[in-house]
Amino acid sequence: MTTPSYVLSLSCTNVPGIVAGVSAYLFEAGCNILDAQQFDDVETGRFFMRIVFNPVRAQPGRDALAAGFEAVAQRFGMDWTLRDRAERRRVMILVSRFDHCLNDLLYRWRIGELAMDICAVVSNYPREIYGAADLAGVPFHHLPITPDTKPQQEAALWRLVEETGAELVVLARYMQILSDDLSHKLSGRCINIHHSFLPGFKGARPYHQAHERGVKLIGATSHLVTGDLDEGPIIEQDVERISHRDTPDDLVRKGRDIERRVLARAVRYVLEDRVIANGRKTVVFTD
Amino acid sequence: MTTPSYVLSLSCTNVPGIVAGVSAYLFEAGCNILDAQQFDDVETGRFFMRIVFNPVRAQPGRDALAAGFEAVAQRFGMDWTLRDRAERRRVMILVSRFDHCLNDLLYRWRIGELAMDICAVVSNYPREIYGAADLAGVPFHHLPITPDTKPQQEAALWRLVEETGAELVVLARYMQILSDDLSHKLSGRCINIHHSFLPGFKGARPYHQAHERGVKLIGATSHLVTGDLDEGPIIEQDVERISHRDTPDDLVRKGRDIERRVLARAVRYVLEDRVIANGRKTVVFTD
Amino acid sequence: MTTPSYVLSLSCTNVPGIVAGVSAYLFEAGCNILDAQQFDDVETGRFFMRIVFNPVRAQPGRDALAAGFEAVAQRFGMDWTLRDRAERRRVMILVSRFDHCLNDLLYRWRIGELAMDICAVVSNYPREIYGAADLAGVPFHHLPITPDTKPQQEAALWRLVEETGAELVVLARYMQILSDDLSHKLSGRCINIHHSFLPGFKGARPYHQAHERGVKLIGATSHLVTGDLDEGPIIEQDVERISHRDTPDDLVRKGRDIERRVLARAVRYVLEDRVIANGRKTVVFTD
Amino acid sequence: MTTPSYVLSLSCTNVPGIVAGVSAYLFEAGCNILDAQQFDDVETGRFFMRIVFNPVRAQPGRDALAAGFEAVAQRFGMDWTLRDRAERRRVMILVSRFDHCLNDLLYRWRIGELAMDICAVVSNYPREIYGAADLAGVPFHHLPITPDTKPQQEAALWRLVEETGAELVVLARYMQILSDDLSHKLSGRCINIHHSFLPGFKGARPYHQAHERGVKLIGATSHLVTGDLDEGPIIEQDVERISHRDTPDDLVRKGRDIERRVLARAVRYVLEDRVIANGRKTVVFTD
Repeated sequence: MTTPSYVLSLSCTNVPGIVAGVSAYLFEAGCNILDAQQFDDVETGRFFMRIVFNPVRAQPGRDALAAGFEAVAQRFGMDWTLRDRAERRRVMILVSRFDHCLNDLLYRWRIGELAMDICAVVSNYPREIYGAADLAGVPFHHLPITPDTKPQQEAALWRLVEETGAELVVLARYMQILSDDLSHKLSGRCINIHHSFLPGFKGARPYHQAHERGVKLIGATSHLVTGDLDEGPIIEQDVERISHRDTPDDLVRKGRDIERRVLARAVRYVLEDRVIANGRKTVVFTD
Repeated sequence: MTTPSYVLSLSCTNVPGIVAGVSAYLFEAGCNILDAQQFDDVETGRFFMRIVFNPVRAQPGRDALAAGFEAVAQRFGMDWTLRDRAERRRVMILVSRFDHCLNDLLYRWRIGELAMDICAVVSNYPREIYGAADLAGVPFHHLPITPDTKPQQEAALWRLVEETGAELVVLARYMQILSDDLSHKLSGRCINIHHSFLPGFKGARPYHQAHERGVKLIGATSHLVTGDLDEGPIIEQDVERISHRDTPDDLVRKGRDIERRVLARAVRYVLEDRVIANGRKTVVFTD
Repeated sequence: MTTPSYVLSLSCTNVPGIVAGVSAYLFEAGCNILDAQQFDDVETGRFFMRIVFNPVRAQPGRDALAAGFEAVAQRFGMDWTLRDRAERRRVMILVSRFDHCLNDLLYRWRIGELAMDICAVVSNYPREIYGAADLAGVPFHHLPITPDTKPQQEAALWRLVEETGAELVVLARYMQILSDDLSHKLSGRCINIHHSFLPGFKGARPYHQAHERGVKLIGATSHLVTGDLDEGPIIEQDVERISHRDTPDDLVRKGRDIERRVLARAVRYVLEDRVIANGRKTVVFTD
Repeated sequence: MTTPSYVLSLSCTNVPGIVAGVSAYLFEAGCNILDAQQFDDVETGRFFMRIVFNPVRAQPGRDALAAGFEAVAQRFGMDWTLRDRAERRRVMILVSRFDHCLNDLLYRWRIGELAMDICAVVSNYPREIYGAADLAGVPFHHLPITPDTKPQQEAALWRLVEETGAELVVLARYMQILSDDLSHKLSGRCINIHHSFLPGFKGARPYHQAHERGVKLIGATSHLVTGDLDEGPIIEQDVERISHRDTPDDLVRKGRDIERRVLARAVRYVLEDRVIANGRKTVVFTD
């Protein structure tokens, strides 16, 4: 049997004594720190920390550890989470016509690379169009949408989030703009892949915009969803070199590769509690 | 109906007049050059060229164009191929336990990114283990192998190459060392993905070797298969940054991403006649 | 004595027969093609080509070759240049307070990496501030500027361009906005380094903008100067990865490295006749 | 006046309570942690940490802080250093014919990017050959070497290390192999730039080796110097893409860019106490 290990993720106003307080608690609780990263944002005076640890003497369990930590958290006014790393997060994936990100996430999930349970795949297209994606054993929901039915579709979507207990919603090239209301409800637990190197080419057909502008690198951006479209805090970005030879179709092809690896990294960072929101930005404790 | 276009790929000893000879022929045959790249290897005195063109007046067809070109080719002693770009190459994929490259190639094939027909997937493992790869509609052959049965297995493999008319054999993490005889037979139409940034860590478990050596970047290499294992002409390589935090398992995970994109690029380059062997090296006319 | 070699760079409306016409001329003039790249812009119907060649029989010289080529050029209505590769272009470098690009260009020039003669370094700051740049043997001109004296300063600048016969003007972090008039006069022979990954953060203090937006990669852009500030055709771009740990000062430091290598590449591409303007874009025949 | 800040760097056998012990000490000493990174090597059971902090109440000074920390260090058997970040390390640079790394380090030093004092530049060539490097104000020592005079030259080198109090020796393309004896004496405070992406092409003329092998990426490696040539613990590596068009001279040119940025990063990491040796490897706490 594997020893359990836990990840503690927190942020609070920066004052002296936080690390001492946290590490003293863990030491007294019989735990050994396996990995720790912290960041002090000197501009905002905010402190961020991620600690991975395991109990070396007794096995108090996640709830007992959390209960004990409550006093430390209150002393410093922390926003915090404490998770057993063996617990898999429930994830809902939203997708439209293009399934390269969906297919990539499904593959990584099947081989155990992403520690999640897929509680639903939702599309505004029917299941039949996903010939290349292996949806076997995955609950699939077709929620078509038109300008007229958008409120009803979003209501159905939200019910599904509640019924499935989705803890993370991944917009895997879901080509619908969420309403402000739904964005607000999902805020903090929803990430998007934008098929552009933001803030470069916002809006529609970014690869065509990039082609017209004649840029020499194209990229993609994964960000937290907030009400402000294309402006949510960025989690991860990457680029590839292009040349004058590349047609818009070539850019779209290269873009698929960038999009799927950027989104996969962002999903993994979130699942491993590496991402903490910091106003309009994120702190990402990469490995 | 789309206008047909052709790709002419050639190499010969470098003398003055080659480009003039080739382009005059195409002009007289009523063709327009869409793209051309050439390379003169001053060390070996060898000339390499790739031309994409389409007929603008008559539509002579591939065979008539090739017959007409024969005189030019003979004058310069060329090794050459002329293909209709609409013709899809017949490709056989060999795989063992790890299916990330297989899955990636299948996906790119299904969405039309790779212009090939998969004539066979061959594995030394049974089909059941490929839960994550969508093999629907793909001829699958289980050819188990043991040290004792290797000659028979390779004979069966070779029969399959002949029966299916495979024009390209892709070793997509096929963890068996081909015999010199089979390597020789497949020479020039077989490519491999080596899970290392060659010539860095040859041999087994390269990511573990990389971890022990403490390198800061890991990579993968796709190369043409020749008799000399790990020494065939390199087609494509790529790397990713790692750190002291990365365990061997992390390197294997990151390696999967590098391997699949390096192999996919190499396969595409070969299918598009962008790769010409040049002794121990390759000329790759990238886009 | 080294055999002379030449580079022919051209663009024209695409019609069949261009490559045949050019290569037949070179063959008949007793020349051997060493390197050739071409590009057909299917959107605009424009054709671009760069050919490096050397005479293998007689040595007609640059002017005789150009005179002979004139007929081919006229037949196709070409914009073209033909240069002896041994001829060094006369380059003027403009700089303001930050001298990292200047220092880098000077170093590459001194070790023979950039085939140019520096006919002038011009700054709106006095020579004394460039303690780290080795200006020995380089004509330095201090042309201070204020809002009131801008017309006179630009007039002096232009006289210097004319007197020195500068064929290329490099804005190496010259923090003054050229007037429309001067931009127009220098159009086609002036390149700039923009300290941003355009079109991302136009305008002032782009690294601070990038920091505020929380992007995960920063970059720089070198472009041809046209009247439209920050919008000239892009020649080269590059990026580096950053993290939440990076302060604006860190971004500026990392930016210096990106800026100097992007500008150095762009300058080399221009000096080697690899860059051809294509409307709002460029064709860059990289090596 | 700027508030002083300090950097504590340590390693020891991993046991519970280290972070608690260190952070409690700093808290009680009236210090605030600005940045902290740690790493537990589960293979060797060794713990590594780097902490940046500043005193927020009293100003005990570096020596008082170190004296107080001694008890914590002894309890855990730590190897450790504690430095005032305002103290500049004394650095000696060794160079041979090629001065691109020297020139780069001098530039970064002059503009304040590298927090060091250059106590000596030593070369086996006379000062006159460094036309492109700005050596003004830098103590330069010409120590010629022949196979016969190697012991004497190294003795003179060592005296210079002792006399100047050099804390770090940077081999900036110093093309002499240090004797085992001198390597041993300098061990832990000497770094080298190897003009190859190790372990790829050890030994002489690595770019020519890379060209012959036909690799698609070349790189450089900076490592700690130990007795085992080309095998010291790696600090930093980087690569650039090349193609069949690149001649050995092109590779050497591209290599210069990689070498100087890899060495500059490694030097900065060492000066900022980000590098801790870990057997045959390093832990590098990057920013």
